[in-house]
Amino acid sequence: MNTTFLQACRGEKTEYTPVWMMRQAGRYLPEYQKVRGGISFLDLCKTPDLCVEVTLQPVNRLNMDAAILFSDILIPMEAMGAGLEFNEGRGPVFHQTIRDQAGLDRLIVPDPEASMGFVMETIRLLRRELKVPLIGFAGAPFTCATYLIEGGSSKTFWETKKMMFTQPGLFHGLMEKITLCTLAYLQAQARAGAQALQIFDSWAGILAPCDFEEFALPYVQRIIAGLKDTKLPLIYFANNGATLLDLAVLSGADVLGIDWRINIREAIRRVGPRAIQGNLDPFALLLPAPELRARIKRLLDAAADAHGYIFNLGHGIHQFTPPDQAKCAVDAVHELSGR
Amino acid sequence: MNTTFLQACRGEKTEYTPVWMMRQAGRYLPEYQKVRGGISFLDLCKTPDLCVEVTLQPVNRLNMDAAILFSDILIPMEAMGAGLEFNEGRGPVFHQTIRDQAGLDRLIVPDPEASMGFVMETIRLLRRELKVPLIGFAGAPFTCATYLIEGGSSKTFWETKKMMFTQPGLFHGLMEKITLCTLAYLQAQARAGAQALQIFDSWAGILAPCDFEEFALPYVQRIIAGLKDTKLPLIYFANNGATLLDLAVLSGADVLGIDWRINIREAIRRVGPRAIQGNLDPFALLLPAPELRARIKRLLDAAADAHGYIFNLGHGIHQFTPPDQAKCAVDAVHELSGR
Repeated sequence: MNTTFLQACRGEKTEYTPVWMMRQAGRYLPEYQKVRGGISFLDLCKTPDLCVEVTLQPVNRLNMDAAILFSDILIPMEAMGAGLEFNEGRGPVFHQTIRDQAGLDRLIVPDPEASMGFVMETIRLLRRELKVPLIGFAGAPFTCATYLIEGGSSKTFWETKKMMFTQPGLFHGLMEKITLCTLAYLQAQARAGAQALQIFDSWAGILAPCDFEEFALPYVQRIIAGLKDTKLPLIYFANNGATLLDLAVLSGADVLGIDWRINIREAIRRVGPRAIQGNLDPFALLLPAPELRARIKRLLDAAADAHGYIFNLGHGIHQFTPPDQAKCAVDAVHELSGR
Repeated sequence: MNTTFLQACRGEKTEYTPVWMMRQAGRYLPEYQKVRGGISFLDLCKTPDLCVEVTLQPVNRLNMDAAILFSDILIPMEAMGAGLEFNEGRGPVFHQTIRDQAGLDRLIVPDPEASMGFVMETIRLLRRELKVPLIGFAGAPFTCATYLIEGGSSKTFWETKKMMFTQPGLFHGLMEKITLCTLAYLQAQARAGAQALQIFDSWAGILAPCDFEEFALPYVQRIIAGLKDTKLPLIYFANNGATLLDLAVLSGADVLGIDWRINIREAIRRVGPRAIQGNLDPFALLLPAPELRARIKRLLDAAADAHGYIFNLGHGIHQFTPPDQAKCAVDAVHELSGR
């Protein structure tokens, strides 16, 4: 069992720097495309055998030091009763947006085993196969709320902020319900065998620090506090969240994910005695091998001061990334860090 | 003549805090919509009389302390020979993207008076009408380049970064040409009577600090150096650029624009003895009047330590903002700062 990832999460010295990549099981891999050719995205998420297959693909091909459960952050929103669809091109769509009390009242706090058993089954199956740790995950309540309020992805998040600023009680009520669902969901993943848990706050970066502190952070704190007795490493990633990092530290997470917009030296100063994960611009995987290697070298040198460092991208790997370039990066991290 | 804006730009004490709002002449105003009802966006940009009219609208209705020329950052790209179209909904579209040397060679460095005389004419007309300073502007080369490379707006900027990372010579050649055009364009605006010049780097925030330093900043520096003998206050706004602020200071600008993602106290620490502009989340204009006022009070209190502060939003005003809410904010800034 390769445990470098778990050691790094705990801030322990590791033999070499562990690597995984956000969205590592995904469209840039031809073997993933092949699986997806025969099934919709949502059906794939609900088919444990296939989820296992695509979760393993990057671990095997690219020699990753951790696997992340193949799923989607919106699965629990569907389990709450919000009808979810994935449209090619347009992304996730919720036809019934949540914008009033009646909409909020229709949402339930589901039993994760009963409504999302396929996720727990995937985790149990994966643990039999994997020789690297398995990361479970969920979306952060704020990020999940934006999808329910906007009805999908958004460029401006007008409706979300409109609710925050003009109906704060309703907004907090929605966050409350999502938080209960998310905590139970992550606890169930832990029971099923997840060895670390990551909370993705993909849209936290649209918030001013004062609003993040009031409307988003308290719910992340509650989830993390509720997961402490699992003893698993807990990772919090606020995308585009460089200016939120001082607050993100207060989430209680053991590991803080960072995107590529911040110099890692500054991030290390800000997070104090906590591990850090991330930082390479995913598009920098396009650099010619010598330059890519040089950039990774600079990153690893800077990360030597961190209290635990896990190499990752600053965002999900882009669908047009040549897999060989991803392999080149993984190999460079391993070689340059002494594997 | 109300010169509080120009004084604040120079870091001088002002009687009260000057206010203007990015995109203050725009779709949220019914009187703007009325003008736009009869003419396309691009034609409006090329009709000095109407540009004057819409530039004045927010100054008159909302009591702004500065006017900003009504135009678009892509006007000079069209003058360079890139065929530009504005589609309702989709935004700006360049049908011929610039992705190779032949495409770059087709672009010219235009004479601004000959090709964009309507802009200079608008400035001359406005100066006769205005009792507040007139801000001229251009897009920063990096931001303009993204539109030419992507063919319009982008979610991921894949093509831009692909060129940066795989054809850096071509990318720098494009930046070079845009820089020459932009400098000449802003010099012409200064000659026509603009009293301050703002450079909008709307997409700088997609860059890692090291890439901003290599691929974007040097060109902003050249433009600002080339404008120093105009003696006008020069404003640089890198949107989503909190982590680039230490580098943005090196641009040479007198005033640094900041979005809403950074706490203004931190921004003030970072910019040193330079003026600051911005910071209110544009969507916070939706707050009920007492909360909006309280938020503005906190902002003004924090900004008391700045070497010159100009109240502004952290991004353009959103099209669905009620004009009365914008008025409420302007009035609050004036009253709370002692006008």
